This record gives sequence, C-alpha cells and structure tokens, in this order.
Amino acid sequence: MPTPRSPARTLIEAQWIAPVQARTDPSAEPCLVGHAIVVENDRIVEVVPQEQARQHNPTAEHIALPGHLVVPGFVNLHAHAAMALLRGVGDDLPLSAWLRERIWPLESQLVDPQFVRDGSMLAFAEMLRGGTTCVNDMYFFPEASVEAALAVGIRSAHGIIVVDFPTVYASAPAEYLRKGLALRDRLRDHPLVSFCLAPHAPYTVSDDALRQIATISRELGLPIHIHVHETAEEVAEGIAQYGKRPLARLDALGLVGPEMIAVHAVHLNDDDLRRLAAGAASVAHCPHSNGKLACGIAPTARMHEMGIRVGIGTDGSASNNRLDLLGEARAAALLAKATSGRADAWPAARTLRAMTLDAATALGLDERIGSIEAGKQADLVAIDLRAPELLPVYDPVSQLIYACGREHVTDVWVAGKAVVRTRQLADPGVRDALSEVVGRTGVWQNRVGEILSGRV
Amino acid sequence: MPTPRSPARTLIEAQWIAPVQARTDPSAEPCLVGHAIVVENDRIVEVVPQEQARQHNPTAEHIALPGHLVVPGFVNLHAHAAMALLRGVGDDLPLSAWLRERIWPLESQLVDPQFVRDGSMLAFAEMLRGGTTCVNDMYFFPEASVEAALAVGIRSAHGIIVVDFPTVYASAPAEYLRKGLALRDRLRDHPLVSFCLAPHAPYTVSDDALRQIATISRELGLPIHIHVHETAEEVAEGIAQYGKRPLARLDALGLVGPEMIAVHAVHLNDDDLRRLAAGAASVAHCPHSNGKLACGIAPTARMHEMGIRVGIGTDGSASNNRLDLLGEARAAALLAKATSGRADAWPAARTLRAMTLDAATALGLDERIGSIEAGKQADLVAIDLRAPELLPVYDPVSQLIYACGREHVTDVWVAGKAVVRTRQLADPGVRDALSEVVGRTGVWQNRVGEILSGRV
Repeated sequence: MPTPRSPARTLIEAQWIAPVQARTDPSAEPCLVGHAIVVENDRIVEVVPQEQARQHNPTAEHIALPGHLVVPGFVNLHAHAAMALLRGVGDDLPLSAWLRERIWPLESQLVDPQFVRDGSMLAFAEMLRGGTTCVNDMYFFPEASVEAALAVGIRSAHGIIVVDFPTVYASAPAEYLRKGLALRDRLRDHPLVSFCLAPHAPYTVSDDALRQIATISRELGLPIHIHVHETAEEVAEGIAQYGKRPLARLDALGLVGPEMIAVHAVHLNDDDLRRLAAGAASVAHCPHSNGKLACGIAPTARMHEMGIRVGIGTDGSASNNRLDLLGEARAAALLAKATSGRADAWPAARTLRAMTLDAATALGLDERIGSIEAGKQADLVAIDLRAPELLPVYDPVSQLIYACGREHVTDVWVAGKAVVRTRQLADPGVRDALSEVVGRTGVWQNRVGEILSGRV
Repeated sequence: MPTPRSPARTLIEAQWIAPVQARTDPSAEPCLVGHAIVVENDRIVEVVPQEQARQHNPTAEHIALPGHLVVPGFVNLHAHAAMALLRGVGDDLPLSAWLRERIWPLESQLVDPQFVRDGSMLAFAEMLRGGTTCVNDMYFFPEASVEAALAVGIRSAHGIIVVDFPTVYASAPAEYLRKGLALRDRLRDHPLVSFCLAPHAPYTVSDDALRQIATISRELGLPIHIHVHETAEEVAEGIAQYGKRPLARLDALGLVGPEMIAVHAVHLNDDDLRRLAAGAASVAHCPHSNGKLACGIAPTARMHEMGIRVGIGTDGSASNNRLDLLGEARAAALLAKATSGRADAWPAARTLRAMTLDAATALGLDERIGSIEAGKQADLVAIDLRAPELLPVYDPVSQLIYACGREHVTDVWVAGKAVVRTRQLADPGVRDALSEVVGRTGVWQNRVGEILSGRV
C-alpha cells in the first residue's frame, strides 16, 4: 500500500499582504512585507515570512507575486445577480417609472430559471474577475443562481426570498419559504453555498410572515437579508400604514438583531440608528445604486462612529450597471468623508475591513472567510501595484482603495482554487460556458425590446 | 515636378458614434450607427455612413472597430498633474493636516522642473490611456508640464499661475505673470498647447493682482482658472477678511464672466449660483477630490437647472489618487441624482457633454475640440463594449457612463494621431520615456520619505 502523499501545498508569495483583523484598529495594522500565504487544499495553513515558508514546505508550488498586494477576497453584501440581463434598461428614470415601466413588466414576462442562470453567470463572472469571492444574492429561482455560482466558482449566499404577493416563482409566503428552505436543506453541507432568509422589504411582507421569518432565523441560525429605508417615501408610507417607522416595526417583530442585514439604510433618524446599533445589526451599503435611483446617501460615517457594522454591496445591474466592489468601496469611503466633513472617516484600512471581514460577519461566515488567517478558507485577491498609474506606492492599502481599479486585479482564489489567473477566468470550461451565455445576451436583449415595445 | 499626393485619409469605422452636439437636447441625440469618421491629418473631414465613406475615399486606411463606441476625447477641466508623485502621501488626513504636514513641506523641498516633468509624464500617460485627450493643468514650472504633455502627446492648457507669496517658482504676482506670459508667447501658435490665467484662489491672491488678471484676460482672451468656494471655512474666512463672499468679491473685481473656470464651487448659496449663471461662467466639478478632502458635494443638479456650464476635473493625485475622467463622470452623474433626489438629473448623454464639449467651451476651445464634427480636430476615444461585463447594450452612451471603466478604452487619437492603440501607448518612444520616469518614481518616493521623517 503506498504511503499517503503529503497534501499539496501552495505558497503565495506577495510583496505585501493585508491580512485584515477584527481585533486591531485597522488603520494601525501594517501590511505584512515579504510574507507567504501557505495554502493546503481549500485552507490557509499559515502566513509567515517567505524564507520560513520555503523551509517548512520544500516541495510546495510557488506563486511569485512581486509588486502585488494580496488581500482577503471581497464580499459583495447585496446583489440581484440575474438582473445583469437588464443592465442599462431603465437608466436615468425616476424610481417609480423605473419600476413600473421597466423592471416589473420585464420581470413578470422574462424571469424563469434560464433567465436567472444566464444573468447570474454574467454577473458572477464579472464579480469574480473584479476580486469578489463571495456574494450575497437575492432573486427568484435561487436554485438557478446557485447553479450559476457553482458553474463560475464563486462562493455565494442566497436569499430564501419572501413577498406577500404571487410572482412567477411562488404564490404566497408559505410557498416562497417552502421552496427556499427545501433548496437550503438540499445544499446545507455545501462548502461554497449558504443561505439567508430574504423578506424583500417591510412594505412587501406582512407582519405574520415577518414574525415567522424571525422564528425560523433563530431556529436555523440564518441571517435575514432585507431592503430597509431605501427611500424617504418608503418610510413615510410605512408610518402611514403601520403607525411607526419600518425599522421600529421590524424591531417590534424581532428582526433587528445580529442576524439582520439591513440593505440600503439611507433614510435613518437617531432612533433608527440606535436600534441598529443596539441590535448589533449589519448594514449593506450600496452607494452607487442609491445614487443612480436618486435615493440619497446613507449616513455611514455616523454608523461607524456608533459601532454599526457596515458591509458594501453592488445591488443589481439594473440600478448599478457595474458590479465592481472595489469601485463601490472607493465611493463608500469618499461619500463618508464628503457627507461627514471628516477626511479621516472611513480610512482605507477600515474600508477594506468593511468589504471583507465585516461583510463576512454579517453573513455569519466570519469563522471561515473575510481575513487571511491560519485555518480560514483561502479566498484571496492579488492586485498588481506596478502599473504606472499606481506609482509611487506610499501605502499599499491606501493605494488599493483610492487608486486601484478592478482592472488591476490579476489573480483570485476561492477556497484555495485559482479561479482567475493573470486577469482571466482560469478554467477553460468556465470560459466556454460564459461564452455561451454571452452569445445568448442578444436573444435576451431582443426579448426585452419586444416586451418594452408592446409587441408581446 | 510630381503631382502633389492627395492627403492620407483614415476611416474610423465604429459600430456606434456619439458625436455630442451643443444644439440639441443631449438625451434625445441618438448615436450614429454604422458610420465612419473620415480623418485627414489632424482634422475630421466628415462623419458619414461607412459605405459612403468608402466610396468617397477608396484609398483610405480603414480602422474597423466592431462593437466599439467612439466619442469625443475627454477633457479634464482641472488637474495638478505633477502631483502624481505625491499620490497617496497624505490619505485620510483632514485638509489642514494634509496641507500643513504633507503637501506644503513636500512641495517646498521637492518641486523643481524635473519633479514637474516626471510627475506630469506619469499623470498625462495615465489620463491618455483612460481616454482624456485634453487636460487643463495648474502647477509651478508650467514649462516642464508643457514639455511632459508634448512628450506624451496629450493636448493641454496650462495655468499662468499666480499667488501673492514667494514659492520655489517665483517671488510675487508680477514675476509669476511675467514667467507665465513669456511661456505663453513662446508657444502661442502651438496646435496642442493653450493657456489660462491661473490665480490660485481668492484667499491666496490680492485684489490688485486679481484686477490685473481680469484685464489681461480681456486683452488676450485667456480663460481664468481659479479654485473657488472649495470649503466652508474658505467662504467664512473670505467674509471675515473682505466683508463679502469670495465669489461676490471676484464678481466685483470683474472675474465672474464667460472666461471664468470656477474650480470646485462646492459651497454656494443662491446668490453665488446666480452670479455664476449671470456671468456665463464655467464650473470645474471635482467630485472625488471634494470627497477625499471632505469638502462636500457641489450642487451640480442645480447648476444644470440654472444653465451653468459644468465640466469635470480629476484634481491632482494627492487628493484624487486616480486620474480617471470616466470614473469621475460616473461619480458626477450619480452624485447629482443622489443629492437632488431626481434620477433624471445628469442623464448619461448630458454627462458625456459635460466631460467633452462643455469643458472644451470653458477652455475657449469649442471651435476646435469637444465634439465629432466636420472641421474639428480629431480628438477621439474608442471604447470596446463587447466585454461580458458590458452586455447587453441597450444604450451605448448610458453603458459608457454607468458601466464602462477606463479599462474598456482601447484607442485614443489626439489631433488625428493614434496615441493609444489596443490599450497601449502607441509610440514606442513614449513608452520608453515613460519607463524611464517609472524607474525614477522610487527615487522620488525615497526623497519624500526623507523629508517627512525629518531627515532632510
């Protein structure tokens, strides 16, 4: 019987590594210089000086990344991936026209598992190439999104979506929950897939369903992914209908806790902020979507001052045509400064933590991802800082947040597997599958045109 | 005697062309489909259907750009290019610390013609590769900036800089003006170079000098490029010192007219806005810099409603580490929507006009550049819309503003010369010169380190 082979190890040797840690003041956390990340299968074994890594692992494969910064994979805390097929279909329209004249008519006629699979493939591939290794998605037919995520190789959390009214996907809260929970049961041990309960928003889900969701969340330990206080109208209508602000209502129903991922959270008063802080809830901040739909600017400097955990999301391509978490993070940092009048709000290292570890914590995945530490999954991004437009490099993390673009991402690993190498999807099979989807975008575009022109 | 050869013509055949016109409602201006831009030497001869262009020009060179959108070259309306060498040197610091502890000490010890040449080369190359074909620069030793611009091949306007106090470059307003005007005289017929008077700001230039500048502007027809109302403190201090708001003071001194390029213009009350509108002045909007230094957000939706011309600028790399006019334009469009509550503020086509024709008009160059029209200079940018992350394409201009990044710019022409081809600087000599500068960035970085650590 042959001796069991010692497991294959890979040394990722980067000029700089920003491990991201929860316990330190991120601004004071220096980059590791000349270190290697030792990866075995899906996990990080250790992060040590390169010399030491080579001595410990004489037969390991080396990946040399001179001039590169390696950081934890980005976690996109809010997306509707399938909507990539509706990218740009209602630009520059006010929210109500956008929804009533474009998104809803299109969704009611177009959305099926094939639409969700194709759109999600397009979106997940875009995210992965830009350094996003984990995405929190919310859409109809999540089984099709899961399929797309696994086909592309991205880690994903999927919403067990619930709305009060019937859609092409289900008819009533009980059916939405039944379908979503069945999918979750089927995949509960999958290493790359997790789930959130996803009641769409306070204005689309009744008290009864929300109460039931709070109970299921506690029983199963599932996060609750919900749109909250996106527009001023939503808050006003919530007060008119329920006699209290939506967040106060959610709080009374038991939903404002550490499991809550409050998406948008733009229009907040002091009471709303206190509830989020007291509940240890998380916010999924989507600055570009909030701009494009003219919703406003979330008070994110205030959130950080109050200790509220904030992750960053792209939202879907119909309200943010670019699924670029690095660009979204730069916008988050600059808006926090612009609106607070404090140039030291959301400093670079703190922003990096928001888009990695804080978002992982919101998803309940911080034991597994979000930082570069021994024992965690090897979800990693390498960025080449040698481009002329990135020189000189006074501080690699500052350069990442304020100067880099997704165009500087060269390599991406998910669970130790290289999914992007030298700026390309690494797996030829994935590239082929994506090409097929790209080929079908014209078909989807024609169908959209037919629906909007009233020809169907 | 040989028959004079008919001049060489090039047909740029793009799937879509957005010509940008002043006279129409930009949102209603459709893209030209299947047209060719006929270029002869430095100029656009005509823009006609491809078939017709080929019939008229049977011997012309063809550049086929399937799936590409071609738009006028971007005009960066405010930059301090040389500061690329200080990219990231004072990130996340409040403005006063940023200036007092970093920028001023460094500038006083580092800045010389070599610093300006190297930094400007780095910045202009970055801009050019991102589609910027014309830049309005303001810095000490403009002769070195001009040299860098011509070396890289970008069109440029240079500030005849004036401040009241002595710097490494000059000692008093008279000397600043003398040096700048001498340079302008030397280059006044250069096809790629123009000049602005550049009094730094109301708080750094006295009434006497400003009056003189207004007179010179009228006599020579030169724009006046000046920082205005960047911070609330600046406005308050202006009132304390002069008894009126800085814009009111500039107006009284004769500077608020069509020749004015008011940079930043963040903190404006109704009276300020009315003055800019009544004077037909232009604004150079720098959203990322205003965010990074926590200055605030300029009221740009309001400016458009009042008919104020707004161009877009990157500012220098020390306050906006990424010299990416396309990214800056997206931020401008999204911020206008977010702050006005109107999703139809700054629609895509209007934003494209801001970053091209409106900025060209501000510089007094709208007869020559800013749109794709017969007789104008062939300053052009081609963007490849075939990337998976840009599909489907419902509206090419909307895709440009909301989804594209500078990474999708493939080809750039300045005055008919291809300066970027297939994403690379086209001229091997320029690439070599840039490599030399890149090699020296380490030396500059070391000197910065020495100065900041007090070792010099």
